Amino acid sequence: MTRTRIPASAPGVESDVTRVAVSTVIFSLRRDAADCPRLVLPLVRRTRDPYDGLWALPGGWLDIAENLDDAASRTLAETTGLTPSYLEQLYAFGDVARSPTRVVSIVYWALLRADEVDAQVAAHASGGDAPENVAWFDVNDLPTLAFDHNQIVDYALWRLRNKAGYSRVAHGLMADTFTLAELREVYEAILGRRLDPANFRRQVENSGTLVRTDSFRTGNHRPARLYRPHRDVELADRGPLAATSSTHESSTT
Amino acid sequence: MTRTRIPASAPGVESDVTRVAVSTVIFSLRRDAADCPRLVLPLVRRTRDPYDGLWALPGGWLDIAENLDDAASRTLAETTGLTPSYLEQLYAFGDVARSPTRVVSIVYWALLRADEVDAQVAAHASGGDAPENVAWFDVNDLPTLAFDHNQIVDYALWRLRNKAGYSRVAHGLMADTFTLAELREVYEAILGRRLDPANFRRQVENSGTLVRTDSFRTGNHRPARLYRPHRDVELADRGPLAATSSTHESSTT
Repeated sequence: MTRTRIPASAPGVESDVTRVAVSTVIFSLRRDAADCPRLVLPLVRRTRDPYDGLWALPGGWLDIAENLDDAASRTLAETTGLTPSYLEQLYAFGDVARSPTRVVSIVYWALLRADEVDAQVAAHASGGDAPENVAWFDVNDLPTLAFDHNQIVDYALWRLRNKAGYSRVAHGLMADTFTLAELREVYEAILGRRLDPANFRRQVENSGTLVRTDSFRTGNHRPARLYRPHRDVELADRGPLAATSSTHESSTT
Repeated sequence: MTRTRIPASAPGVESDVTRVAVSTVIFSLRRDAADCPRLVLPLVRRTRDPYDGLWALPGGWLDIAENLDDAASRTLAETTGLTPSYLEQLYAFGDVARSPTRVVSIVYWALLRADEVDAQVAAHASGGDAPENVAWFDVNDLPTLAFDHNQIVDYALWRLRNKAGYSRVAHGLMADTFTLAELREVYEAILGRRLDPANFRRQVENSGTLVRTDSFRTGNHRPARLYRPHRDVELADRGPLAATSSTHESSTT
């Protein structure tokens, strides 16, 4: 990859100019040592000032001839190897004090299943573009991040938890079929608290969002029925914006 | 008001620089000749290129030392005299083709009751700052606007209509107490279609969002019971962002 990037502290960058950056919050699930799913996100270690050595959200500068969505996809792929099919715009962060120079960051987010993460990173690496300085962190155990990125993650978590309450957003982290216990574990990971299994089962079964399949998960426990989402999951309905979005070219092709 | 503003076509503005602007969509209600409430918004006629003579959303450039929220409040007040107590960030529009030069616009929005509009404009005008070239337009009868502002309004309307479906957002346009017929008219103005009065009454009464008062609206029709919102209306819960917001100083003081 031979894109020219403007270093954050490039000589000649005027201090009286506001620059536009993009950053991305990617939520996924990883099972911990106790086999419980944990909500995780990828961070990139900075290798230059400001905040040299600290972890930061994946991102980079907006190119002059690049749409916002495309910049988010490109910088995410360049820094992490991740190529989600869709990134949703989350919020624009632009406080004067958030960076030593004036930077407005347009933040995007997406949910990715663990198998999607693994497949995308492997495809990216096979192109000779193994991302460096990337690690996945438990959202409940983050270090101090560069810039205002802790605040950005807090906001993204709050939006995710709000969405989880009234929509099928959690399905974006599930396989095609799943047991109610598996779904409950995902909600517990998102919400950061335990849910009563009987109450959860009743609420989900009454919600009309799931369809009972005739299949069962077997294994060490007694067989558990598998469910699937009721309709095609629309995790990100952008209304009129969807029609005008530019095509995202995968940067791994 | 003696702020320096950078003209859109200022000599010396480099064409390879991305600039950041703010724009605002303010929804209010005005009664038409048939006494039906219509959803309206204020537009400002441009007096320079690009799009000289066309109507555009209120807005302006982000100052280098100004937070995004503050820029939205300031430019709205300067162009229209409106000073809503809170503006919610709607979306960042940044397509390459949306303007002759590269401009990323952070768009804010708010709902204002007609009496709030009148009071704010009057207070602003008494300071000798009567806004010029401002007019209110029915959202269903907009001319061709400058830049991508028709698309921005479409997106804001879509978000408003989505919100109206599951929240108490419409209460932001209501007086402290109101009849169910008045509330239905507001929903009809937002949604752009007629609602069945009996169905509407049943849904609202079952929603738990309203409290019946002991007062009635009297006049030409038979007395109609007045309702009020069940709790303090939280039209814009921003979660963790609320704690970090800067104070908005009214530009009319």
